[in-house]
Amino acid sequence: MFAQLPKHVTIRDMGPREGLQSEPKVIPTAQKLELIRALLRAGLKHIQVTSFVSPKVVQQFADAEVLLKDLEHPDGVFYWATVPNLKGLERAIQSGINGISIPLSMTDGHNIVNMQRSLALALKQCEAVISQARKVNLHVTVSTSCAFGCPIEGYVPPQRVVEICKRLEWMGTHALSFGDTTGMANPRQVKVFYEMILAEFPGVEISTHFHDSRGMGLTNVLAATAAGVRVHDCALCGTGGQPSTSRDLYAYGRLGNICTEDLVGMLEEMGIHTGIDLEKLIDAAKFFEQITGRELYGYLSKAGPVKALWGGGKTYLDYFIKNFGFKDV
Amino acid sequence: MFAQLPKHVTIRDMGPREGLQSEPKVIPTAQKLELIRALLRAGLKHIQVTSFVSPKVVQQFADAEVLLKDLEHPDGVFYWATVPNLKGLERAIQSGINGISIPLSMTDGHNIVNMQRSLALALKQCEAVISQARKVNLHVTVSTSCAFGCPIEGYVPPQRVVEICKRLEWMGTHALSFGDTTGMANPRQVKVFYEMILAEFPGVEISTHFHDSRGMGLTNVLAATAAGVRVHDCALCGTGGQPSTSRDLYAYGRLGNICTEDLVGMLEEMGIHTGIDLEKLIDAAKFFEQITGRELYGYLSKAGPVKALWGGGKTYLDYFIKNFGFKDV
Repeated sequence: MFAQLPKHVTIRDMGPREGLQSEPKVIPTAQKLELIRALLRAGLKHIQVTSFVSPKVVQQFADAEVLLKDLEHPDGVFYWATVPNLKGLERAIQSGINGISIPLSMTDGHNIVNMQRSLALALKQCEAVISQARKVNLHVTVSTSCAFGCPIEGYVPPQRVVEICKRLEWMGTHALSFGDTTGMANPRQVKVFYEMILAEFPGVEISTHFHDSRGMGLTNVLAATAAGVRVHDCALCGTGGQPSTSRDLYAYGRLGNICTEDLVGMLEEMGIHTGIDLEKLIDAAKFFEQITGRELYGYLSKAGPVKALWGGGKTYLDYFIKNFGFKDV
Repeated sequence: MFAQLPKHVTIRDMGPREGLQSEPKVIPTAQKLELIRALLRAGLKHIQVTSFVSPKVVQQFADAEVLLKDLEHPDGVFYWATVPNLKGLERAIQSGINGISIPLSMTDGHNIVNMQRSLALALKQCEAVISQARKVNLHVTVSTSCAFGCPIEGYVPPQRVVEICKRLEWMGTHALSFGDTTGMANPRQVKVFYEMILAEFPGVEISTHFHDSRGMGLTNVLAATAAGVRVHDCALCGTGGQPSTSRDLYAYGRLGNICTEDLVGMLEEMGIHTGIDLEKLIDAAKFFEQITGRELYGYLSKAGPVKALWGGGKTYLDYFIKNFGFKDV
């Protein structure tokens, strides 16, 4: 199971974008900047900072240009933003962002409910955006939704996902992120899915994007890691998720992405390095709760890191290797 | 990772005992009986129904004898109860229960805080209880605490756990349950731990007992499953946990066991059968919330089972095999 565990993985926080997208309160730009800076202090290098969606659709991101103008840009940090169409792309190019993320659902039903267009039309728009973005050397990710199941259509055949993604690869996307938008995936499914995806797309950057509606989020990361995936999307405080596209909206207790703190805590204890300082990440999580004005999700910000209980900032693995004598666990 | 996944596992619900142990409100016996019946209707076969702890210590279980007298006992159902000492054992024997669970922490610090006795003294008392219990053919489990780390002492060497458990095996325990009492274990640790335990104790029934303080509970079940463990403790609505023995009590958001509904949901979607009806289990969870009068934990009772979205009561695996053509995933 863990024979091929990586030494390092890349963690991409979606809190400032996906985490705020459905937040009813519009957060002032200054507080968003502080949130992103708190993530930078914790060591995050990949942050989805905003969305170039029309302010008429999502008022929260009307300040996208202002935010990016005022945001410092340390070396080695990759900022990206959601770009749903060509109009959004124009704004993104002007803003000086590093990369864009184009949302695309793997089913007709979810594309229609979420983006008011069919999958066929959405693919045509994708092609136009990818083509233009590549001309100006913007890094392009297509962020798929419902890759593991759809709240509207139910079962989503994995071979259908591959077919759609082959077209996206041909269009020139650099990266593919596979979204379990409403937390339907299980780890057995995830393992097989990513083994297939990694085999089918050796030249494309592959990542996970799990939501935690049914508590399987971290188990799915574990399965994807075992399959060989090394990049994981998540959101501070487990924020995010789309109330508007959940068929059973009112039944849902939790829609959000997997929680960045909990994910980093698990990986670090397993000896998989993320380059992230957990204490500072918890500071960022507490600031996020402060600016939204409500209790958010996640376990670690309440229970504290395990390593605090081992003493000396070490992880379990350090003690285990020292005391138990195992070299390779 | 999943090459050796089992077809069936045993799920043991601890809700009526561990889930109620720290509940401030004393639940009327009639409601406890209804809770256990709701679990039986859902298909649970192993239920920890009460504790023969002194009513002076835990008032909640002062009704242990009355409860067991009024509880029907269908064929194939195994009821067990916590027995901390010889006095508790006498009561257990009179009650007609199937099995007992003796609590024992793997560290001095936690034994002292939790049971007001050293590990050495606790072991002596264990021996007396096991010896008496075996004379009357009661099934004996020693339920270890802090087997993966201790909130008082920190690191717990796995070889120390093996040494203690070798003595328990010699004393005659039938089963060993390994408790991650304050949710410190990570899946890498768990995998290695259980491979060692299964190799060291081939003649003893081995189970997991994870708490979910840091969101790693289900990942640890996955790791233990990969190691070969087939019996898992859990509690309805993620109840349970010991506020009195958590060093950082006030920081804790969640102390509870892994949530039975979420565990069953994950396993069933993976094609691992539990014999449990998820819809009826959610009914039981809702009843548990009703009698405690507060919102409890767990995702699935809010989001609903995934299989409801596939239609026809099937799981993802059914659709996957039918549409994707894989025989062995």
